[in-house]
Amino acid sequence: MKVRVDVMLKTGVLDPQGEAVRHALGNLGFSGVESVRQGKVIELDLADGASEEDVRKMCEKLLANTVIENYAIKVL
Amino acid sequence: MKVRVDVMLKTGVLDPQGEAVRHALGNLGFSGVESVRQGKVIELDLADGASEEDVRKMCEKLLANTVIENYAIKVL
Repeated sequence: MKVRVDVMLKTGVLDPQGEAVRHALGNLGFSGVESVRQGKVIELDLADGASEEDVRKMCEKLLANTVIENYAIKVL
Repeated sequence: MKVRVDVMLKTGVLDPQGEAVRHALGNLGFSGVESVRQGKVIELDLADGASEEDVRKMCEKLLANTVIENYAIKVL
C-alpha cells in the first residue's frame, strides 16, 4: 500500500522557511510573490495489511507536530 | 493565483531523512514500513499576471535542486 502524507503548518502559525523563500525569490527578481508556505510530503510504502488508521497513528506520533501542523493522508 | 509545487528526490538518490523516519517508525512499533521518501511541498500565492512559466523558472532557480530533485507544479 502506497500512502502520501502532506504536512503543512496550520494557518496563523509563522512560517520562517516560507518567508525566507519569498524573500529569496524577490532577490532573484521574481516580483508578485505574495506569500509562500512550505511543508513536508512523505511517501510511505507499507506492507499489505497496513490500514489508514495505522498511518493516522504514525502521523499523530511522529510525522506531524499536531500542535502547529495539519496533516492529510492520501492512499495512492 | 495559488500554485502548489511538490519537490521530491529523484528515484535512486539516497534519502537519509526518509531512512531516519522509517527507522523511527520501527522503533515506535510500526511494523511493515517498507520505505519512506520525504520531500517538500511549497504553496505560492502569486499576484495576478504570474504564469506557470514563471513558477517553472522559480523551481529551476531556487525551489528545487534539479540535479537530485524532481518538481511538479499544480495550479490550484
